Amino acid sequence: MTQLREELSPHVGLTADGERVRILDQSLLPNREVYLELSGLAEMVEAIRALRVRGAPAIGIFAGYGVYVLARQLPRTGGARENLAALCLRAGELSAARPTAVNLAWAVGRMLDRARREAGGGWPAVVSALEEECLAIHREDIAMCRAIAEHGLSLVRDGDGVLTHCNAGPLATSRYGTALGPILLGQERGVRLKVFADETRPLLQGARLTAYELNRAGVDVTLICDNMASMVMKNGWVQACFVGCDRVAANGDAANKIGTSGVAILARHYGIPFYVLGPTSTIDLNCPTGNDIPIEERDPEEIRTLWYKEPMAPAGVRCFNPAFDVTDHSLIAGIVTEKGICRPPYTQSLAALFSE
Amino acid sequence: MTQLREELSPHVGLTADGERVRILDQSLLPNREVYLELSGLAEMVEAIRALRVRGAPAIGIFAGYGVYVLARQLPRTGGARENLAALCLRAGELSAARPTAVNLAWAVGRMLDRARREAGGGWPAVVSALEEECLAIHREDIAMCRAIAEHGLSLVRDGDGVLTHCNAGPLATSRYGTALGPILLGQERGVRLKVFADETRPLLQGARLTAYELNRAGVDVTLICDNMASMVMKNGWVQACFVGCDRVAANGDAANKIGTSGVAILARHYGIPFYVLGPTSTIDLNCPTGNDIPIEERDPEEIRTLWYKEPMAPAGVRCFNPAFDVTDHSLIAGIVTEKGICRPPYTQSLAALFSE
Repeated sequence: MTQLREELSPHVGLTADGERVRILDQSLLPNREVYLELSGLAEMVEAIRALRVRGAPAIGIFAGYGVYVLARQLPRTGGARENLAALCLRAGELSAARPTAVNLAWAVGRMLDRARREAGGGWPAVVSALEEECLAIHREDIAMCRAIAEHGLSLVRDGDGVLTHCNAGPLATSRYGTALGPILLGQERGVRLKVFADETRPLLQGARLTAYELNRAGVDVTLICDNMASMVMKNGWVQACFVGCDRVAANGDAANKIGTSGVAILARHYGIPFYVLGPTSTIDLNCPTGNDIPIEERDPEEIRTLWYKEPMAPAGVRCFNPAFDVTDHSLIAGIVTEKGICRPPYTQSLAALFSE
Repeated sequence: MTQLREELSPHVGLTADGERVRILDQSLLPNREVYLELSGLAEMVEAIRALRVRGAPAIGIFAGYGVYVLARQLPRTGGARENLAALCLRAGELSAARPTAVNLAWAVGRMLDRARREAGGGWPAVVSALEEECLAIHREDIAMCRAIAEHGLSLVRDGDGVLTHCNAGPLATSRYGTALGPILLGQERGVRLKVFADETRPLLQGARLTAYELNRAGVDVTLICDNMASMVMKNGWVQACFVGCDRVAANGDAANKIGTSGVAILARHYGIPFYVLGPTSTIDLNCPTGNDIPIEERDPEEIRTLWYKEPMAPAGVRCFNPAFDVTDHSLIAGIVTEKGICRPPYTQSLAALFSE
């Protein structure tokens, strides 16, 4: 259990007894730092849907811990086959909590694969193996973020302006983060980047989380509304755009927070390179193009009333509230993974990542 | 005084006794419909700065009434020269309340010119002439909006999708509005347009005002966050973009609500025509290009805390909050005025408007 006590990251992990997943409730930031300890499937699903845990890699890490916690709840003396069947059912519900990010299904699948491989040794052996596996997922994510940060940092110079959208920092991943990795690694090394953070409506992850993380780290960050990105770019203040990704298709089309495709189009217009940063676990070679990525549509009240003192739109007005959009591969200058930087044509460079 | 009592538009006008300007406080919409009656210079300036009255043409109309109300307060038996000097001073302060829209300075200038022309007849004659003049400004705006709506409606077909940014409807002008003019006129004639309204951060004029006006008029309107425009366009739901303008330079560069230039770049990317709609009073031939238009920068708290139950960004994080941006003339398919539709090259087509 000592392994469990070691804090891989402060905002997602296991409780000391290993019986619950412990998360920092991101939905309450930046005003309140509240930790939740979850053991039930329903509350895990709710935590994902309500964005208490969010960011594709962080959801994957959370789901790994979640499957482990759920596995521990099955009878230790029960038949491994029966327990495995029960776990598959419950893990399936966890996996379906949000549709767009591939990491969630990927982490759940990885945990279940491990469970199947160990099932011959009885349930206690499965639980023990799952403990290893969820910690491995977390540790690998930390290493991946570090590698992504290194590669990303090679794309910018001291003093450059970087525009980012949504939050792909430590909260969304582990430690450095993906899109914020080069910025935070640079900060450690004296490579100072000037960051423009889109507030990212409707859920304001840029204002609430990116500005919070970067401000705490001492990074030079300026918060803007999403619609100000064009002016900031026109003013010559941005030398690169760094964004995360929830799923990358085989052709390089990248699903990420709604508004990302607009940032990419503006960057193309102003001649600024636009980079997508994410671990290879977000690349889905089974998904030929962005058209094959399901886009989650969320509650209109996120636009109309959430956060506000009073409604900000007339009652009953129709809203369209997609959570993600797809950035066409033709707009992406590079996809930065832990294994290096893929360049166009992505159909070849992404496939090569997996054939090595 | 009967002239004053006739309601040219419900949201900006004079009180029945002509002693105060009466406005619908737009800063409280859509939740409360509160009318204000203003007679002091300081409260008029505050009403403009706090966006209780907003929209370039509406500010112009308001300023016309404001100058008249201020003129009435000067001693009727006072010397016309002394009164004129006092009025100039006070009108200058009104004119400086916001820097970007040209209509404000234009309306104040027009009122003062009229006052100067009439000064020989004594102050009561000046006041009487100013009453005529401010009503003329208002009536002309209504006629202009109607003409703009007619020209704009020729650019779309029944069933088309139209994306608009900020609010350039009746609240921002008088009656039909500019950018919303073709939509509202179409609605009267059975030409049904499907409108996508950007919410328009940080002040949410799209959510609070455009969605409110169009919803009331029975128009098919869908509210989106600004960063969703790219996806809505990609989905093929938009056949034209209609936006208003605060000032148009001689080369066609158009200053309008922050985020407008981003919409224009997205529209260009997706092959959708982008139209700027406004009266010729917003065209400033003395301003060679958009670089010569001053852009107002506003309070960072509009991004961080305004509207919200609690702050949505960490205390002290830097914000950049420009109120407007400039859309390059190369991105504009047409500038729709009450005199017709100007097409590129704008340096010639705009100048021709004024030489006729």
